[in-house]
Amino acid sequence: MDFSDVIATRRAVNYFDPDRDVPDALLREVVEMAATTPSSFNLQPWSLMVLRDKEEKLRLQKQAMGQGKVSEAPVTLIVLADRRGWADECPFTEKNFQEMIQAGAMTEERRAWFSKARTNLYGTSEASQLAFATKNTGFFAMALMLAARSKGLHTHPMDGFSMDGVMKEFHIPETYWVPLLISVGYFNDAQELAPPKWRKTYDEIVVNF
Amino acid sequence: MDFSDVIATRRAVNYFDPDRDVPDALLREVVEMAATTPSSFNLQPWSLMVLRDKEEKLRLQKQAMGQGKVSEAPVTLIVLADRRGWADECPFTEKNFQEMIQAGAMTEERRAWFSKARTNLYGTSEASQLAFATKNTGFFAMALMLAARSKGLHTHPMDGFSMDGVMKEFHIPETYWVPLLISVGYFNDAQELAPPKWRKTYDEIVVNF
Repeated sequence: MDFSDVIATRRAVNYFDPDRDVPDALLREVVEMAATTPSSFNLQPWSLMVLRDKEEKLRLQKQAMGQGKVSEAPVTLIVLADRRGWADECPFTEKNFQEMIQAGAMTEERRAWFSKARTNLYGTSEASQLAFATKNTGFFAMALMLAARSKGLHTHPMDGFSMDGVMKEFHIPETYWVPLLISVGYFNDAQELAPPKWRKTYDEIVVNF
Repeated sequence: MDFSDVIATRRAVNYFDPDRDVPDALLREVVEMAATTPSSFNLQPWSLMVLRDKEEKLRLQKQAMGQGKVSEAPVTLIVLADRRGWADECPFTEKNFQEMIQAGAMTEERRAWFSKARTNLYGTSEASQLAFATKNTGFFAMALMLAARSKGLHTHPMDGFSMDGVMKEFHIPETYWVPLLISVGYFNDAQELAPPKWRKTYDEIVVNF
């Protein structure tokens, strides 16, 4: 699909066709397209929980103000942002380091430098850790919503939920933040979508101080 | 451009053609494509400062570890995330409210309800305000990078900079967080791009607890 059509037709869809599943291979394809997303030091501090089971989705729906689409969509994703995704104890920082060495862009001697750089940029405060996790995961989530659209799917991003409730219900470790849920499926075209909402213009977005 | 080509060819480009400008009309088009990005309650808590002037870009470069692309690219954007973008004092929350009334999705009687809902979801702590601002602005920034690519441009997202330094230098009000800078231009094809970096696979992204 042409990019301009993807952008123009991506909508937060409230109604999913309950009879049309999202095959696992298609979901993989969408997630792997989104995986190309750039991130701070390529640390990719995002993860997904994939909910397909009706009972599981209903448990999530209970924590999400009862929003019907959480369980009506064939797939609902819990999107996770790792606030410690920059730190030495995160296995992906070591993987990152080894992959950079293999690519000839890093040497074992710079291990301490790399650790300090990550810490200084992302680890100096609770706020910087949270911003690191949520902005990068925001990049990933947006790419995922667009990638889904490019494959004929629709999505609905949601942040109307109890984060504490979701974390307890699904045993999510507390180093994660849950920036959003995304329901994924095919639009139920027995329903009508409201017209697109207003958006800021270029002149409203660009500021000067 | 086909979406799959946009995704496959978007790279964080280090070298920009210094002789090829980004016309203002093209930048507008890219920003307005990105403006379709979904956000919490459609609050769109993102803004951009557009730097084209060489001296201005050099002042930014000084705060960004001297990275050459900040001033070599014809345009460098300071991306701003409004931590108070959910609050009553933000003019866009009132615009949002009025636009919803016009669309028949809100009534004047629900003003207090709408204010309380925004506060409860995004305003209860410093952390929730920051997460609200940075995740939504992350969505917007990613859409902008992909939209730029779809128009033949390249971008480079950066978060290696002193946020305090940038905020002081450019008189940015302290309710904002600066999640990233984005340089925008045409790739300097006298240079060679390194091969794409590794990415997490689907099985590395999907987690269970």
